Amino acid sequence: MTVSIHRVRVGYADTDQAGVCHHAAYLRFLEQARVEHWRERGLDYRGWERSSRLGLPVVDVHVRYRAPARFDDLLEIETWVGQSSLATLRYDSLVRVGERVLTEAQIKVACVGLDDGQLRRMPPEVIEAARR
Amino acid sequence: MTVSIHRVRVGYADTDQAGVCHHAAYLRFLEQARVEHWRERGLDYRGWERSSRLGLPVVDVHVRYRAPARFDDLLEIETWVGQSSLATLRYDSLVRVGERVLTEAQIKVACVGLDDGQLRRMPPEVIEAARR
Amino acid sequence: MTVSIHRVRVGYADTDQAGVCHHAAYLRFLEQARVEHWRERGLDYRGWERSSRLGLPVVDVHVRYRAPARFDDLLEIETWVGQSSLATLRYDSLVRVGERVLTEAQIKVACVGLDDGQLRRMPPEVIEAARR
Amino acid sequence: MTVSIHRVRVGYADTDQAGVCHHAAYLRFLEQARVEHWRERGLDYRGWERSSRLGLPVVDVHVRYRAPARFDDLLEIETWVGQSSLATLRYDSLVRVGERVLTEAQIKVACVGLDDGQLRRMPPEVIEAARR
Repeated sequence: MTVSIHRVRVGYADTDQAGVCHHAAYLRFLEQARVEHWRERGLDYRGWERSSRLGLPVVDVHVRYRAPARFDDLLEIETWVGQSSLATLRYDSLVRVGERVLTEAQIKVACVGLDDGQLRRMPPEVIEAARR
Repeated sequence: MTVSIHRVRVGYADTDQAGVCHHAAYLRFLEQARVEHWRERGLDYRGWERSSRLGLPVVDVHVRYRAPARFDDLLEIETWVGQSSLATLRYDSLVRVGERVLTEAQIKVACVGLDDGQLRRMPPEVIEAARR
Repeated sequence: MTVSIHRVRVGYADTDQAGVCHHAAYLRFLEQARVEHWRERGLDYRGWERSSRLGLPVVDVHVRYRAPARFDDLLEIETWVGQSSLATLRYDSLVRVGERVLTEAQIKVACVGLDDGQLRRMPPEVIEAARR
Repeated sequence: MTVSIHRVRVGYADTDQAGVCHHAAYLRFLEQARVEHWRERGLDYRGWERSSRLGLPVVDVHVRYRAPARFDDLLEIETWVGQSSLATLRYDSLVRVGERVLTEAQIKVACVGLDDGQLRRMPPEVIEAARR
């Protein structure tokens, strides 16, 4: 299982009055990193959600903040599949500025039907993308 | 046409590194003020959206920021209907801390079908709520 | 150690196109719950930050999402101190709608100097508030 | 006065339950477009804010939403200086997907001292960047 790198610039709106990137902003950054991870492996999440009427909601978030990111930092987010099961996939990430690791994250997603909200088995096309 | 008052506390996440409430946060506050304005006039926006399959998207925003709000300020948002037409309603607001006006806003909403995205006439139940 | 309850209404901006409250929004809700937890125990976080030049940044987040919150849900967030050490405090929360638990969270904060960003021992006034 | 183009991908967190990009998200996109506009004209906003202890807060926002952006759309934001005075600069933007204009915005910024919050004359380095 290979690593994808997604770059994101910390915006002014992402900062708080302590002068650092607010801890909630990383969840948005990490979500976009997963979307790009899927895209690079042939899964267009937008199209897939529409055609399958399935979704991959986040069911578990674990983030450790080691050092703060600051406004205008160009973050590099490395993302890979850390764990997979019939029900969930865990996407692991490191957020870096240059060589320095600021944040480590493990985000678990499940599969649900968008119309009924019921849990489903992880579909084969998602598992295959996760294996690439 | 009468005024509703909605109170909201500025959160830490709403601040930026200039030490003030970020200008984008007000759009969230003003949106919630409109939801409460509708509720006080008998229009449960959640239920109405579901049953009518209509929505009231924002089509025009004008906000003037006179003085900054700060973390933990308890904002009072006065909201009233400033203008109405067959196609749009304009909700006007003052955002105050105590007697001091920080922000003035005029937010125009239109009516669309949620399934086709097409513009509709403003429905009678919304106009009636706006008149109360 | 006692529990505080903070109520928050899910806004339209908090939802996403899956029709549920986006997972990142909870971090804002939980942050406000901690601010109110401190206030109820005599610690005015705004004033304390200003006078001490210290801050309590989030260093570790663990959230489990069991069931989705929806637009206009009135969430009740129970918050208590789950663990304390010389260096960190862990605030534990349950997010409920009525009797139903939607989300469980454990958020660890550390103490830093706002001017130098260096870690400090948890100050006595914060520990005392945590014990109430 | 020339135009800069900033590209931004609409994230899942930017959407709302109507299935479109929430109107408040554009203020973040437009803010980042101004930061890039400044950078392209030799003004590193982060460094300038630090060294001058000045800031350029938004004092007036006017946005017209003509058509919705959707999740995963790659927005192109054209930004130029629409008006300048001793006290304010107005940044005008068009938000497009391909050839289609979704949104028009006029955002006015003033100059304040970050330590005292007092209004200042627009400094020459900002005016010069605006003229390029």
